[in-house]
Amino acid sequence: MWIAELSRQSDVPVATIKYYLREGLLPAGEAVGATRARYGETHVRRLRLIRALVEAGGLSLARVRNVLAEVDEESLEMHDVLGAAHGALIPTDLPATDESRRRVDDLIAERGWEVHSGSPDRALLANALDALEKVGYHLDDDLLKTYASAATQVADAEVAALPADDRQRTVEATVLVTALGGPVLLALRRLAQQSASARRYGMPRRPACDVGEGGVRSTG
Amino acid sequence: MWIAELSRQSDVPVATIKYYLREGLLPAGEAVGATRARYGETHVRRLRLIRALVEAGGLSLARVRNVLAEVDEESLEMHDVLGAAHGALIPTDLPATDESRRRVDDLIAERGWEVHSGSPDRALLANALDALEKVGYHLDDDLLKTYASAATQVADAEVAALPADDRQRTVEATVLVTALGGPVLLALRRLAQQSASARRYGMPRRPACDVGEGGVRSTG
Repeated sequence: MWIAELSRQSDVPVATIKYYLREGLLPAGEAVGATRARYGETHVRRLRLIRALVEAGGLSLARVRNVLAEVDEESLEMHDVLGAAHGALIPTDLPATDESRRRVDDLIAERGWEVHSGSPDRALLANALDALEKVGYHLDDDLLKTYASAATQVADAEVAALPADDRQRTVEATVLVTALGGPVLLALRRLAQQSASARRYGMPRRPACDVGEGGVRSTG
Repeated sequence: MWIAELSRQSDVPVATIKYYLREGLLPAGEAVGATRARYGETHVRRLRLIRALVEAGGLSLARVRNVLAEVDEESLEMHDVLGAAHGALIPTDLPATDESRRRVDDLIAERGWEVHSGSPDRALLANALDALEKVGYHLDDDLLKTYASAATQVADAEVAALPADDRQRTVEATVLVTALGGPVLLALRRLAQQSASARRYGMPRRPACDVGEGGVRSTG
């Protein structure tokens, strides 16, 4: 198909497609003459993937490029795809105290999780525990275990639900689930928090999106 | 204490404290003469809270201001604090299809969650389901229920762990748990995913932070 049809099928404007091509987010089409190119189904799918990561996942284009570059490596084995997606999604080299790092290591050992000692999520988690500690909020072991248990249930179900057909679809699903499953889980957690808070403190008088007479509104 | 001591105790530079004062993120100190002011323990705590939200929670200053303005409303009852924090944390008025909205409503009804019909998380969740659907990834009911069940366990434990002493500490803890519990949960989920992926596809050969010979690295 030509670029106009690609734009129609993917619901992405032609100018944006050209920008993605220049930026290397989208592989070039098959050249037909000097100025035209033909595109295929893989381009449609790739465009939809980019839009989902940007719009629903809230990722910057630079981060999307990192993720795609990592998982597009043909030499990458399936068992390295998830780690590659994670590595490109999260910041690395976050500072953390030895104590929080040890807490994370202990938790991983306790749960029998097979994760590399170099996984950036270890540091990210230790850093978050430190941040809470610094403001005088100690996340105690019971709550941490509850988080870990809930995380395990979710992760097991997510990985089990990955399609097993062709490699490209599995890679795409891995990226999508990793990037978009997070917002789904956090939205459900907030809804469940609202319900738990209603039980503890009584039902809110007004919807969460309309609080405080004359107060500052968050319409952003 | 003077501003220099406030800076030392909170580990925030004086210039940054002055910026927060000008921007209304931090309440003014008690004026002593024309150019000096005294600050107290509440200022130290407020500064630590701001830094935690910015550095570990990844919130913009504009968003931090929204959250604080919402929860600082003295007229706000405890049972409205959580909703106010949520309302200020997440974008509102996201588009979503009727079908996904109905799925979310059904799920909430099924779980017996007490949440307002106007909660922006309903739209956010429906929007995320739509985004996945659009890229050809249907998040099936079993997986959605697993998310909801995990979210409930986490939320119940989080709300139960909120301190019950003075109002200001409870409000702070509510904001912190809402903003920083998310990154903790997501980091644990990624670690658990890596472990589940290792079981399904075999152990990765290299750490997640160092994949692909000659491939693009994510050092950001």
